[in-house]
Order: sequence, then C-alpha cells, then structure tokens
Amino acid sequence: MSVVAGKRLETVDLYPSRIGDAPRLAPRQDPVVWGGPEGPLETAQLEFYERNGFLQFESLFSADELRACQEELRRLGQDPGMRAREETITEADSGEVRSIFAIHELSPIVRKLCEDARVVNIARQLLGSEVYFHQTRINYKPGFRGNGFYWHSDFETWHVEDGMPRMRAVSCSISLTENTEYNGPLMLIPGSHRKYLSCVGETPEDHYRQSLKNQEIGVPDDASLQALFDEGGIFVAKGGVGSVTFFECNVMHGSNSNITPLPRSNVFVVFNSVENTLVDPFCGLKPRPQFIANRRDFAPIQAG
Amino acid sequence: MSVVAGKRLETVDLYPSRIGDAPRLAPRQDPVVWGGPEGPLETAQLEFYERNGFLQFESLFSADELRACQEELRRLGQDPGMRAREETITEADSGEVRSIFAIHELSPIVRKLCEDARVVNIARQLLGSEVYFHQTRINYKPGFRGNGFYWHSDFETWHVEDGMPRMRAVSCSISLTENTEYNGPLMLIPGSHRKYLSCVGETPEDHYRQSLKNQEIGVPDDASLQALFDEGGIFVAKGGVGSVTFFECNVMHGSNSNITPLPRSNVFVVFNSVENTLVDPFCGLKPRPQFIANRRDFAPIQAG
Repeated sequence: MSVVAGKRLETVDLYPSRIGDAPRLAPRQDPVVWGGPEGPLETAQLEFYERNGFLQFESLFSADELRACQEELRRLGQDPGMRAREETITEADSGEVRSIFAIHELSPIVRKLCEDARVVNIARQLLGSEVYFHQTRINYKPGFRGNGFYWHSDFETWHVEDGMPRMRAVSCSISLTENTEYNGPLMLIPGSHRKYLSCVGETPEDHYRQSLKNQEIGVPDDASLQALFDEGGIFVAKGGVGSVTFFECNVMHGSNSNITPLPRSNVFVVFNSVENTLVDPFCGLKPRPQFIANRRDFAPIQAG
Repeated sequence: MSVVAGKRLETVDLYPSRIGDAPRLAPRQDPVVWGGPEGPLETAQLEFYERNGFLQFESLFSADELRACQEELRRLGQDPGMRAREETITEADSGEVRSIFAIHELSPIVRKLCEDARVVNIARQLLGSEVYFHQTRINYKPGFRGNGFYWHSDFETWHVEDGMPRMRAVSCSISLTENTEYNGPLMLIPGSHRKYLSCVGETPEDHYRQSLKNQEIGVPDDASLQALFDEGGIFVAKGGVGSVTFFECNVMHGSNSNITPLPRSNVFVVFNSVENTLVDPFCGLKPRPQFIANRRDFAPIQAG
C-alpha cells in the first residue's frame, strides 16, 4: 500500500467490508507479529500472541502504582466540565459516564501510565516499529446497569471508518478494578484475528455517535461468529487491579452486561505503528473525530 | 395468616412493598428450612441452604436422562402453534422464544422431569410439607442476543402481584445446556434471602406483560443491592447438563446478558407448600394469569 500525505493512491482495498449482501470470512493479509526477538517478550509469548491474538499479564502494575489513576478516574467522572466534552461518552439509558476518549491529552496522570515503558516496549516489539497513540480512553463500565459490547473486530471499524491501512495495531487494557467472571469482563475468541470478517450493511454518516454506545452496523453475523467460536472457544480476561491485556486489532471480542455492583474500569490504549498511519476512510465518508482516531499526531511515543 | 377459600381475612401484610417512597431492608419473618431431617438432604446441606439460600448439585440428572427434554425444547421452540400461545414469551428485541410457561401442562415429557422424585423430595424436605407446582417453564435464553435479567427477589413479586402469603416456596433450575461463566449464568447473592427488600414504585395493571421481558417496577435499589453484595458476595451457578440449582423464593438473583453463541436453556420449576397457597394479590390488583401463578390446582405432586 503506498500512501502519500495520508491519501490513498491505489484502488485496491485489502480488507473490504460493509459492501455486498453476504458476510465473508477471508484470510488475514498481514503478519500478526511484526517485530523480532528484541524486546520484553519471550519467544513463547510471541508464539502465543501469533496463534491466539492476545497476551494476558497478571500484574504488570502494582495496585500502589495505579492509585493515582484510580483517583483521577473518580475525579474526571464527577467533573461537570469533563462530562460536557465531546470526548465523554455516556450510557444510552442511564446517562452515566461510559468512557472518556483522548485521555492522554486530558490527563497528565493517565498519560504517564499510557507512556510507561512496560506497555510501550511490548507494543513496539509486537508491531516491529516505533508506535504512537491511535486512541486512548478510560472506560468506567459502571456496575448495576453497565451495558455490554457486542462482538466486533476493532480493525474492521478502524479500516472502514478511519482509514487504518493494515493490521498493525494493538490494544492494551490496564485494569483499574477487578475483572471477575461476573462483572462483564472482556471476552476474546482466540485465533479469530487470523481471519477477516467482512460485515454487511452500509456505514451511515456520523455513525460513531451511535456506535460508541450500541453498535448496529459493522456487526458480525451469527454463522461467522459460530464458526470462529467453534474453532477458538472463548477466553475470559479475568484479573485483578494492574492486570493487563494486549489484544490484536483484528481479534473478535466483546463483553456481556454487568448487573453486579462492581464497576469494571480500565485505561485503554491503542498503539499503532508509525508505518501504518491513517489514510482516507475506506467507506468514502468523512473521517471520525480526532479523539476517536488520531490522524494528526504520529510522533513516536517516548517511553518513560 | 389465616386464609379462607383464598381470601385474606386480616389486614396485616407481613411483607409490604411498592408503597412509600423509600426502599427498606427488613428482617425475614419466616423460617428458611421448614422441614426436618427426614428426606434426601443431609444436615450440612440443610445448614448451607439455611445460611445461603440455595443448593447446587453437580449432576442430579445424567445427560442421557435429559435427551428427551432437550429434543422437546427444540420441537416446542419451532412449533408455530406454541409460539402463538400466551404461555410463550419472546425476547423484546429479537422476537426469539425466551420462555414457555405452564410447561407441565403443555408437555408430558417435561412434566415427567418436573415430577421426578429427586427434585420433588428435596422440595418437600425444604418446605416441610407436600408441594405443588406454583409455576413451571422452560427457558431458552438463546445465544448472541440473550438478554439478562436484573436483580430481583421472586417472592417480592409473587407476594405483591400473586398473593403468595409466606416465604415457603423454592425454585429449581435443571440445566439442559452447559452453564459457563460467560453465557449469562444465574447469579445469586448468598444470604440475601434472610432480608426482605421492599421496593418503591406502584404496580401498574397487567404489569406481567412487560415485566416478563424487562422488569422496571419491583426493582431493587442500588444502595440495598450494594449492602447485600457487601455482605454475601455473588455465587455464579455454573454447571454442566443435568446440574440443578435450588434457590429460596426470596434470594436476590439475576443474570447478565449472553452474547456468546451458547444458549443457556433449562427447565424451571417453582414448588410451593400446599400450606402456602395463593390469596388475593397484596397490591390490590387483579391476579396475574394462571400460567404465571397457579391459583387453581393445589393437588400435591405425586413424585415419580
């Protein structure tokens, strides 16, 4: 794929989706692990990621280290000014804060965590290059009425709606609260990142306003999900405060609702390769806002 | 409580709810275990039930024994005649079959299971008397778009809307599919049956038409749920085909949604003591339909 100043030159879309009237499971066109053996990950971990599309760390951070971030989470969630910003997404029914995007620009405390060498160096090794923040956010996932998130591949949306050319990004979720089996933990279908599921339905204008609350377009069909599940089963990302999950941009994932009183809050960072910066969206519509898909600042992260 | 021909004579309501503008956690007025040592349950099991409000059996039935019921579940779910009946409840959004009530009257195969001595004798021992079917149903809880069920005490509704006088009933869920941590299993708050949570809000006419899909009245408040959770935590009723959960009519329970492809189907039986038959609903409205709350046939079950 050749790109000049963020414009697509060729007409070939490696990962078409939301066109045609039938879903299709096609092979992945990109490597999973882009880097080599240099870095914090051992061969066995790289092989696990290659095969399954994720890596789970029990305690990459101590609870003590995350105290400031937990406090920041509380503070920002109660800040009326923050609540009024477009970066803040609320629950469709209850109106409670669901997520605050572009958090690395809004909170120096959270930014410090996002830049921590322990996560940045893993992202560098997996993506085989310098990395930048494609998206950051804190997720509140409040208890009692926390809605789930239906199965999806992030890459499908990022490619179609944001113009991410290749599968060369990785998400990193740092737990600020306990993730139990019952408070709506992240679920992943191991191995699903090795196929690309094109969805049916055409992307509407300003789709993100709805899709961040409850996605209806770009939604996988039952038969394809069943096939992926039959092959890979489900991994439930349980873990305590400070546990970290890295997952590949194309792995199928989602979560059930959370009626328990326990919130499931985390800091969420998407690292993209500096060699995979965004071009025009492949759906032909105008790009989504900067806070959802960074298309302005590709400076490599200086890990701290 | 004295009852003549199903009419309440006295004015005292032991378990008022949905009146006043504040929720209240009051002590339970009834025994938990009504029977004695005679029966299939050992002392330790009776004590566990007394303390926690439920009992979980890994494999009270073999998968082989449940084959006929699984087949019946499939057959009834596809039967257009069954779908059109008022006993059949569909999912609010997808229209898929959620439950079929009064199943012991609609299917001799399922009735045989509901009358099995292994479950009936446990119910008899817990309730200390002969028992009858207060309610029976099969639950489909389909995969992909299976909605959850918010926290509730069955007794609160059965008392207010159906006129069940005392806490002397027990529910029994017999699994026809696997209950994993991720397909929306039943969750219970251990010990919550020892308190009675009165809810706010007034019961509307024909409330059941909505409440069987998505309940909004008779819903516990956050602070009371938090208090019950802080004391008892959450028990997740996982188990394979043939696992059985008995839970007390007043234990707080609910389930998250199920986006996995795995349905979570079960046969559900509520046994009531023949000494606890229904009177007029305590909310003053007309009774709910017979298929939801049996107020006609109190003949003791002849266990098979």
